Amino acid sequence: MLAPRIIRQLEEIVGKEQVTCDPTDMLCYSYDATQQSFLPDAVVFPADTAQISAIVRLANREQVPLFPRGAGSGFSGGALPTRGGIVLVTTRLDRIVEIDQDNLVARVQPGVVTEQFQQAVEKVGLFYPPDPASLKFSTLGGNAAECAGGPRCVKYGVTKDYILGLEVVTPQGDIIRTGGATMKGVVGYDLTKLMVGSEGTLGIITELIIKLLPLPEAKKTLLILFDSIDGAAQAVSAIIRGKIIPTTLEFMDAATIACVRQATQLDLPEEAQAVLIVEVDGDAALLERQAQRVLDIVAPLGVVGTRVANTPAESEELWKVRRSVSASLRNVNPDKFNEDICVPRSRVPEMIRKVDVIARKYGIPIVNFGHAGDGNIHVNIMVDGRQEGQLDLAKQAIEEVFAGALELGGTMSGEHGVGNTKAPYIPMELDPAAVAYMQTIKRALDPNNILNPGKIFLEAPVQAS
Amino acid sequence: MLAPRIIRQLEEIVGKEQVTCDPTDMLCYSYDATQQSFLPDAVVFPADTAQISAIVRLANREQVPLFPRGAGSGFSGGALPTRGGIVLVTTRLDRIVEIDQDNLVARVQPGVVTEQFQQAVEKVGLFYPPDPASLKFSTLGGNAAECAGGPRCVKYGVTKDYILGLEVVTPQGDIIRTGGATMKGVVGYDLTKLMVGSEGTLGIITELIIKLLPLPEAKKTLLILFDSIDGAAQAVSAIIRGKIIPTTLEFMDAATIACVRQATQLDLPEEAQAVLIVEVDGDAALLERQAQRVLDIVAPLGVVGTRVANTPAESEELWKVRRSVSASLRNVNPDKFNEDICVPRSRVPEMIRKVDVIARKYGIPIVNFGHAGDGNIHVNIMVDGRQEGQLDLAKQAIEEVFAGALELGGTMSGEHGVGNTKAPYIPMELDPAAVAYMQTIKRALDPNNILNPGKIFLEAPVQAS
Repeated sequence: MLAPRIIRQLEEIVGKEQVTCDPTDMLCYSYDATQQSFLPDAVVFPADTAQISAIVRLANREQVPLFPRGAGSGFSGGALPTRGGIVLVTTRLDRIVEIDQDNLVARVQPGVVTEQFQQAVEKVGLFYPPDPASLKFSTLGGNAAECAGGPRCVKYGVTKDYILGLEVVTPQGDIIRTGGATMKGVVGYDLTKLMVGSEGTLGIITELIIKLLPLPEAKKTLLILFDSIDGAAQAVSAIIRGKIIPTTLEFMDAATIACVRQATQLDLPEEAQAVLIVEVDGDAALLERQAQRVLDIVAPLGVVGTRVANTPAESEELWKVRRSVSASLRNVNPDKFNEDICVPRSRVPEMIRKVDVIARKYGIPIVNFGHAGDGNIHVNIMVDGRQEGQLDLAKQAIEEVFAGALELGGTMSGEHGVGNTKAPYIPMELDPAAVAYMQTIKRALDPNNILNPGKIFLEAPVQAS
Repeated sequence: MLAPRIIRQLEEIVGKEQVTCDPTDMLCYSYDATQQSFLPDAVVFPADTAQISAIVRLANREQVPLFPRGAGSGFSGGALPTRGGIVLVTTRLDRIVEIDQDNLVARVQPGVVTEQFQQAVEKVGLFYPPDPASLKFSTLGGNAAECAGGPRCVKYGVTKDYILGLEVVTPQGDIIRTGGATMKGVVGYDLTKLMVGSEGTLGIITELIIKLLPLPEAKKTLLILFDSIDGAAQAVSAIIRGKIIPTTLEFMDAATIACVRQATQLDLPEEAQAVLIVEVDGDAALLERQAQRVLDIVAPLGVVGTRVANTPAESEELWKVRRSVSASLRNVNPDKFNEDICVPRSRVPEMIRKVDVIARKYGIPIVNFGHAGDGNIHVNIMVDGRQEGQLDLAKQAIEEVFAGALELGGTMSGEHGVGNTKAPYIPMELDPAAVAYMQTIKRALDPNNILNPGKIFLEAPVQAS
């Protein structure tokens, strides 16, 4: 519980109607996509940078933890108020300030919804590639804080690659500008890229300068069915080795296909043990040839079916297969742990075999799909938390999945971040000296440990309420 | 002068023959492309990471400043031993450890020469785009420390965009690994991108994991002559607005053309007041059409001549014009201050006009050329330092050039870095809170201020010897 004087000060900063301590209201800001829930002591909705700065200064004065939050669509608990305190919601800062068509640069506030921004720039023939699955409601500020990815990152890179500059409120309440609107800039340390992916622990993003690309002229989508997981995985390597980097190279294993088949009317033949969805984009004149080259490359690898989309509507139809995955998994088991490990792409077959061994060992269904083109596989460990011992088994399986990814030269998170869920596993991936180096940065910049404490690697994990 | 016990310890670490205190030997490690010279107290040539770590620990114990150095090709003084101490040369760590063709990733030591690395990956059909002018002798470690650019960055991005991970010796001598060999990874703070461009002040890079691309199938080069600077500058914006992002979009002003004309046999007609060199690359089938579109776009903007290269040899001939610039400038005046300001590309015409006003005001020739495609113009202030007052005039002109770039939303350095030369001007670009944030990071990580002290923004500028 916050002292009434703190609530009063919050109300003075943002106005009475932009602070709530009502448990029912606050519940909406207690959870994210991880299905954990932590009730804060207050939720505040600032309107601008000055108010955010004032709130941060207040939190420092009063030694209250502060948890910045966008849309709360994160998959690692990065925005959760794991130790009460104040949740600071940035969704009122939702203006696209400028789309500069001459310089292919936009200036936006952190609360702008990803898809709305994409639509706005596409309207003028421009392109913002990062496309996390949550793009219909995730915010650009949250995308930057977590360094969001998505299917198109194979070709176009992740959120970080599109953030040129930021306005940031530091952990002590100063307002700083990092980077700028130019394509190049090397003056001082690169605080922009340090901030992106730091999950709100080193500052609160209050404005973003975003790099745009010309919108590709056209795209072409292929759905390719394989008779084995190995064939599909080898196809990924073969396509890249063939010097083609598709826009997306999505993968679904047999368990995923079974879920989709069960939950939808989509026609997926029984002999299909793995699916790749390959999309190429660019100059319309080239796409036909590129698509054919992909088909030629994969042909010897056990292809049992191919569908080619030539229009946006047909492409949409193929993507339905991929989009129906998340919902269809609910039929397997009610509780899903979606771990987004990433390995060098040639190691994907080995990784899938490792996961298979782990699933058998613990007798838990594990469903794999995701961004095979960059080795970023979503490993979904499906359990029923109501059954005794299942959550413990899931935990052990997760740890083995992480260990497997690390053995193959990979990482435990390609795009979801660490948040509070992966924090306990950090010592598996980062050596102690590297953690110490990071902790030194955090402690120096946030000496009172106000901003999103207990996240990433900094302290012992906390228990969900 | 270093105490003999320090020299002895250095010799114990690297071997007697890998340490020198001979002034004649040391002279070679006292300067860089800025033409400043600072004599160190010792130069040491470690063979591996363990030796580098031991040297850093020694420097901390003995409180001796340590200056990491690659090939010394920097343009801002980043590698200069501005306060004596030890120069640590990384050129013996010169191995290409691995080129992984399946995953388009290479692992290299910091002393590998940029061009040698490019040739090695091109031999297997791969591509490392960053191409600083010094690539024939610059090292990849130095490129990363300064975040080097080059003409191809318009389309392909800068060094930072290709560094996936690092091994680093921290300012206190720990060995850490940052990032990794995967295309995505969001575990912990992004120390990789923090390190790249930090000019050896936050750690010494001892290994690099580098992202590669498939080598483009073909390229086509156009040299376009304009009757005015404005026409050429407008052409840059028009090409980008036309949704073409060429591989390179290089620019030369009238003064540059005059230098080239005087110093070489190259045929450049008198009416040419500006030159653009435009290169497009990619699928051979597309290039003809892309080149034609570029020519169509620029046609109304005062084109007085066009040359198109269809073969690598013809392309090489066109690039000779650009390559002869640096040498030909010596005819204007003996001393050159090459400032690599960067502005949003649509502001290039205004920037050139500002520079023209400054040149007239101070009566100093200023020659502009560079990477117009990303707004990164090399403003060369040409003086004769032997004449009284000329260096002072140059300093004033430089400050006004920086102010002009900042007024247009630009930066004082697109790719050369800050080093010791731009450090005095930092308060013009970065607000005090941002500088304080950076200084907090440096002080926390390098409490003894051992690693490359006096660089970037940290302390008052020092005088060249």
